[in-house]
Parts: sequence; structure tokens; C-alpha cells
Amino acid sequence: MRRQEVSRQVIRRLPKYYRFLTELENSGKQLVSSKELSVLMGRTASQIRQDFNCFGEFGQQGVGYNVSHMRKQLAEILGLVREYNIIIIGAGHIGQALAHYRGFNREGFVVKALFDIEPDKINNDTGVPVYHTLRLEEYIKANKTDIAVIAIYEEGAVDMACRLRAAGINHIWNFTPKDIILPGLHVENADLSDKLFLLSYSIRENAEKQQ
Amino acid sequence: MRRQEVSRQVIRRLPKYYRFLTELENSGKQLVSSKELSVLMGRTASQIRQDFNCFGEFGQQGVGYNVSHMRKQLAEILGLVREYNIIIIGAGHIGQALAHYRGFNREGFVVKALFDIEPDKINNDTGVPVYHTLRLEEYIKANKTDIAVIAIYEEGAVDMACRLRAAGINHIWNFTPKDIILPGLHVENADLSDKLFLLSYSIRENAEKQQ
Repeated sequence: MRRQEVSRQVIRRLPKYYRFLTELENSGKQLVSSKELSVLMGRTASQIRQDFNCFGEFGQQGVGYNVSHMRKQLAEILGLVREYNIIIIGAGHIGQALAHYRGFNREGFVVKALFDIEPDKINNDTGVPVYHTLRLEEYIKANKTDIAVIAIYEEGAVDMACRLRAAGINHIWNFTPKDIILPGLHVENADLSDKLFLLSYSIRENAEKQQ
Repeated sequence: MRRQEVSRQVIRRLPKYYRFLTELENSGKQLVSSKELSVLMGRTASQIRQDFNCFGEFGQQGVGYNVSHMRKQLAEILGLVREYNIIIIGAGHIGQALAHYRGFNREGFVVKALFDIEPDKINNDTGVPVYHTLRLEEYIKANKTDIAVIAIYEEGAVDMACRLRAAGINHIWNFTPKDIILPGLHVENADLSDKLFLLSYSIRENAEKQQ
């Protein structure tokens, strides 16, 4: 596999391919054509073939791609062959929502702990424990942690990212409205507003067409 | 402006440009070069120039782009010149998190109501009202609604999308782990897991480099 040639744009499409292939496998499908995938992905069949060519031989001309083989290959490329331990900073609505989101566990992402500064949110009784944020460094030292989610107010987000980096965390998922760009950190920004902007774009377009 | 020629890929990058330009404007910056934008966007300066060329003349050779002019143009293209009324189906953690997310209001996205089937979640006392889902159609008939967010269990998501479409809603933001693809609906899928997959990809890559 010539993984090193794969562009960032192709990589960012892999999760979506992976999700669709998982759904196809679950529905019992064994082969899928690039044309069928193109409907799901919103790309042309030729773009689909180009993407997959980056990762070697997945399909046979005229026969289609082997769903479960391709899904397994993508799982390996995406690193989905082990468990990842996650902690969430901020036990407000977003933190709690993510801690209980059913889609993560099934792919091996396990939320181990939440952290918050408000004493009445600290809770070690049921479900995912909530610790005081003062104990963050101590926790990371004692417990292997792969990914930290930042779900606090945006004013404190960059400081928290620096603090996590100092504690040895390199992978962050940022849920504040402001992107975090810091050297030495791989940050995925949730960019929640972006989806709303795409919807408002479409609403404006439709309104103009109807005029 | 030659908007009709703009590809779907360029459109999907506009929210991010818009967010960065807003931040630059807030920080008092008047001009920005495509090189500076390229650092923020993770694209080459030439790709940035190409994207903006789709929308007409924003910059002058060697001088840079006018931040506030460009931000204003993008706001218009994205339809961010009016308010959008949002309802959220599902008043669980995700629904409540979105109802209280501070990033939306400032761009004119106003959450007007939540809906839930659990009687103990119905609440009309403070903040955003929570109605019983039985009253969904009645509410939409009486209140102009632009966007509906689906934040219920994935098993009921497609049925809910059909129900919303029948009630006249065409724009949906889907927070269940399973994508919704239905004719006559513009659905933006939150795809929360995708960001985790990109982080696990990066963790795997780093681990391999260190071997």
C-alpha cells in the first residue's frame, strides 16, 4: 500500500466510506459498485475509484468492490483495531451528551472519565465518573489516555489545550465554537456551526430559485 | 458573481472561511493574504485563491484580501443575513446541549422549541420550551420553522425525517450516528464519529512512525 502518497483530502473522506461500508456489510451486501457508492457519498464513480486506488487493489473491473474486505482494510487504515481511551473536560450538556453517545463505544472509543470544576457535578457513583479538573494531571499520569475532548466555555479552551499537551495528550476533539490551532497537537474541531451554515446556504439558494 | 459554477466542495469550505474571517475581523485585522489564510485553512495559498475566484473579485494582487468586505460577501452567500428558527426533536443530553450552545445565536440561529415523548421532560417554565412530540405538526403549522434537528435514537430517525418532511420542513440536521439520505430533504449529518476516526488515524500513523 502506498499510504504515504495519500492526500489529506482523501483521508478526510475515509470515515464516511468506512461508515457506509459498515452499513452495507450489516445489511448483508457482499459486493458494491463505485456507482452505488457514488450515490451514498455524493461524489462521481470515477472520484470514488480514484480515492480507493490510493490504497491499493480493492475491486475487480466490472465486478465491484468486496464490501467486507474493503471495510476491514479501511478499519486498519483508520486504526480501528484497538480501543481508545477518552476523557472529556466539561461535564455540562455537551460533555454528558458525548459520554452517553451510543455511536462511539461500538467502534472502540471508550469514555473513561469526565472532568469539571463545579463541585456539584463531581460524581463517582454511577456511569462515567466525573472528577474535579484539579485532578486532571494526576489522572492522566495514572491512566493511559488517547484522546481528550474539550467541552468547556471557549474562553478557557486554548489554555486547557496547552494544559493537556503539557500532560502528554496529543489528540484533542474541540467542541467550543472557536477552532484551536496549536503546534504539537492534532486537534479536530467539531465546527458545529458549519453544518448550520450549509443549511442556511441551501435555504437561501432555494428561496432565490423560487423567486 | 458566477455562483452557479461553484462546486459542492468549494461550498462546503465556505463556513470555515467565514469563521476565520469573522475571527480576523474581531481581532481588528483589515487585510489578509492568501498565504495567511492557507495556514488557518490547511490548504495551499493557490487553492485559497482558486476558491475565492469562484465568487468574483475579493482581493488585489500583492495587497491581500479585504477582511470585512470578504466576510460580508460570504455572510450573504451563506444566507447569514436573517434569522433562522430551529426546533430540536429529542430533549435528551444532545438536544439540551444544542439548545444551549452559545455559538448559534450570535449568527442568527435561534432554537425556538424542543420536542420529546417523555412526559417528565415536557417543560414550558424556563428557557427553551419542551413540548410533547405529539404536538409537532400543530407547532410547525403555527410557527415558521426553518430547520429541524433530529436528536433522538437512530431507530426512529428516518421515520422522524419523513414526518418532518410531510409537515413541510426541508432542512434537517441529523445527530444520530446513521446518515439520513431521503429525496426532497437537505440533510446535514453531524457525523460525530468521523472526527474520532480521524484522530485514531493520526494516533495509528504516529505509532507507526515511532516504530
